[in-house]
Amino acid sequence: MARNEEFLEKAAALLPKLHHMRVFPLTPYRGRTLKAGESLCLDFGDHYVGYVTLKFSYTGSHPDAPAWLRLKFAERACELSENAAEYHGWISRGWIQQEEIHIDVLPAEISLPRRYAFRYLQIEALDLSSKYDLTVECVEAETVTSADDGGLAPYACRDAELERIYAVACRTLRECMQTVFEDGPKRDRRLWMGDLRLQALANYETYKSYDMVKACLYLLAGDTLPDGAVGACLFLEPQIEVDDTRMFDYSLLFVAALRDYVSVTHDGDTARELWPTAKRQIELAKASFDDRGIVRDSDRLGWCFVDWNLRLNKQAPAQGIYLYCVQAAIELASALGLTDEAQTLRAEYAEKKKAALSRLRDDRGFFLSGEAKQLSWASQIWMVLGGAVEGEEAAGLLASLEAEPTAEKMVTPYMVHHYVDALISCGREEKALAVLRSYWGGMVREGADTFWELWNPDDPGESPYGGTIVNSYCHAWSCAPAYFLQKYFRK
Amino acid sequence: MARNEEFLEKAAALLPKLHHMRVFPLTPYRGRTLKAGESLCLDFGDHYVGYVTLKFSYTGSHPDAPAWLRLKFAERACELSENAAEYHGWISRGWIQQEEIHIDVLPAEISLPRRYAFRYLQIEALDLSSKYDLTVECVEAETVTSADDGGLAPYACRDAELERIYAVACRTLRECMQTVFEDGPKRDRRLWMGDLRLQALANYETYKSYDMVKACLYLLAGDTLPDGAVGACLFLEPQIEVDDTRMFDYSLLFVAALRDYVSVTHDGDTARELWPTAKRQIELAKASFDDRGIVRDSDRLGWCFVDWNLRLNKQAPAQGIYLYCVQAAIELASALGLTDEAQTLRAEYAEKKKAALSRLRDDRGFFLSGEAKQLSWASQIWMVLGGAVEGEEAAGLLASLEAEPTAEKMVTPYMVHHYVDALISCGREEKALAVLRSYWGGMVREGADTFWELWNPDDPGESPYGGTIVNSYCHAWSCAPAYFLQKYFRK
Repeated sequence: MARNEEFLEKAAALLPKLHHMRVFPLTPYRGRTLKAGESLCLDFGDHYVGYVTLKFSYTGSHPDAPAWLRLKFAERACELSENAAEYHGWISRGWIQQEEIHIDVLPAEISLPRRYAFRYLQIEALDLSSKYDLTVECVEAETVTSADDGGLAPYACRDAELERIYAVACRTLRECMQTVFEDGPKRDRRLWMGDLRLQALANYETYKSYDMVKACLYLLAGDTLPDGAVGACLFLEPQIEVDDTRMFDYSLLFVAALRDYVSVTHDGDTARELWPTAKRQIELAKASFDDRGIVRDSDRLGWCFVDWNLRLNKQAPAQGIYLYCVQAAIELASALGLTDEAQTLRAEYAEKKKAALSRLRDDRGFFLSGEAKQLSWASQIWMVLGGAVEGEEAAGLLASLEAEPTAEKMVTPYMVHHYVDALISCGREEKALAVLRSYWGGMVREGADTFWELWNPDDPGESPYGGTIVNSYCHAWSCAPAYFLQKYFRK
Repeated sequence: MARNEEFLEKAAALLPKLHHMRVFPLTPYRGRTLKAGESLCLDFGDHYVGYVTLKFSYTGSHPDAPAWLRLKFAERACELSENAAEYHGWISRGWIQQEEIHIDVLPAEISLPRRYAFRYLQIEALDLSSKYDLTVECVEAETVTSADDGGLAPYACRDAELERIYAVACRTLRECMQTVFEDGPKRDRRLWMGDLRLQALANYETYKSYDMVKACLYLLAGDTLPDGAVGACLFLEPQIEVDDTRMFDYSLLFVAALRDYVSVTHDGDTARELWPTAKRQIELAKASFDDRGIVRDSDRLGWCFVDWNLRLNKQAPAQGIYLYCVQAAIELASALGLTDEAQTLRAEYAEKKKAALSRLRDDRGFFLSGEAKQLSWASQIWMVLGGAVEGEEAAGLLASLEAEPTAEKMVTPYMVHHYVDALISCGREEKALAVLRSYWGGMVREGADTFWELWNPDDPGESPYGGTIVNSYCHAWSCAPAYFLQKYFRK
């Protein structure tokens, strides 16, 4: 891996401190007793990230056997009824927030060492003895976030639904704001590049923690893959280390994220210092094109992320993402006064856009992807964002998708964010707002306290992981409304 | 409960310090890697009690999901193949030495906070992720015992089998010698009166920790049931507290244990100070007799322990135990020069012995128990120990049991200890030695490192708990050979 210690030191100095707050369950429970086999579900009333301490005592005879408990933490109540033993998907069951503990001596105060993301805590007495019942004396959580609640930009409009959607989006972002912008505090608890970009956008309109974005950009630029590619994500512990996961789109999106940061902060020093990293992403992506000027498709699972729709072909979306990020690079080069580089990038952009228009479109104007010429929402959206088509033509393209039931759909709020962005980019603000209301509003109507990693209204139980128990229900790439509502829909 | 703070303070000052020793598995394992679903069994080569620290790292990519492990501690290898989820007996599954842990950051050093009793440790990777394997770098145990290995009385005879039986018995005692004499370091980890008495006897011949016995006697006398009865057992944590379990025999055996202690140590002060407690046990037991002079039988489960044979009727054994303990009280009173009290006790003894002989015996001379006139080994053994019959008559009675296949058998080494004691009391040393060889030697031949709580050679899977997974395989009431071999069979 290629490390730039100077970048990493700069990042370390900018990383935020965590704010701590003590919270207690809203459920009345003090003094509740549990017999062997019984359980108690506590509701903290909102989503929290933090550390939990439990105080137990007993009623009856002096305990003559250890108390054996299962503790389940859940972001949504539905997780409590799922059985970890029945999950056989490809993602590690280690993510399921469930512990078994033994208590040898009662009364006891147990401070669990791990951090959890939760609204609910279920305490189940797997076994006690017949001589005593377990008494739950006190449960409290020490919550953590680096978001400054006092600094949150208010959003006041006359529309209660939008206000609620905004609040839930901000809560989502807040919970993911820890030492870095995590993708989700339940899973994977890491800094992912594509997720960071959307978090940063929401953050600019809400908590405005500019330094935290800057720190994250320096982290990602400070430990890249050996060829200089920004990794898909970064680990912080036990020390900073780039993941060896390489994704075409996530590396490129570093360029867009830097462009976004600079355009909001006008931080020319950072732009200058990180420009070589941004430029390198374009260079590396360029090598992925065939001689027709089209991104080579790949069988490698996850070579390009785009969305969690497992049937989605990534070729055309990747072409659109490339165009989008080359545009961002042009903006950065121009802002830095790098006229020659900007000119070269413009030529590159024109060439790849032309290839997309001539090689990937069908008679109806749809961009098709891969050998099987797959029609998908993702392809059209990214081509619009990449500027392959613009204005009314782009708006018409997006609108015509709705009459194509076989077009591969979007399954993540991450992808729907880009759809909303595309709608706004071609002047369809009204439609964009309708999507915010129906999609994110749909989660709110389902009781979301924070927005979910995955949400397919047609198939609420869908999970790319082979089971919903490992789904994350507070996922920062879903906080789009915080960005869009505050930026475009402040009536 | 009736507390005597002076007694408890005296006890606290006498309780031993624990010796610590670091041990490592004998199994070659350093650097062994586990994939999800794989497990590793480590053999420490002998039975230990202590605290375990594990160091893990990984091979492959940086871990992208927590490692979820199950750790199983086992005194015998057979425990590892048992499934905790399938145990539905009446004793708490909380006793099963099994933990689930999550490791969020690797490399990691995990010091488990609980104490375990084990020779084997199985590490099972319940789940990792496909991107890394778990590496077991180092496993070590900090073992604890209050026994002084350097002070152990040697036992050298020309018989390798007896030497091995002696060594295993001493190991059993050693492992149970913690802050107090525990019944078993796996389960229940407490000071039980009946168990203490046999441990103390073995201890006098081996480790000779007289103060530790004295401390335990003061503890039991220092916190009794409200009427002054010595409880069946005592809890030490979070503070000293007598269990509310009352057992006819266990209360009485305090008298015998005090008599044993005084006869070995000639500690007159302790005899004098604890005499009122001893005397009170006789008084309380006396109230349990009917007007024929026979202990009233009871339906209350566990009113008198005797043995773990769940079909055993306890009436006749209780009568024998009473006689035995009144004899002990007479010895104590005489030693203390309490002539009147001794005289009164002698009269009481004679009366209850006469009742036993006239009311409980059948034509063949067997003592029968309960309304159903049950014939059992326990009844005859305790009548012999209680002196209801003596010498050749007693020896004949015990011998004739062998021709009675329907007589209820013994299932614990605790009861077999009393059988050996009874044989010796009526001059059948050779038979006693044969029992030591066959019964305890049987466990050794089955690979015992320490002697088991339960051992029925005719039914090795027998457990009074509804499943062997909660059985204790290092149980101090089974260390009889340490006492008998050293005291009677030092060739």
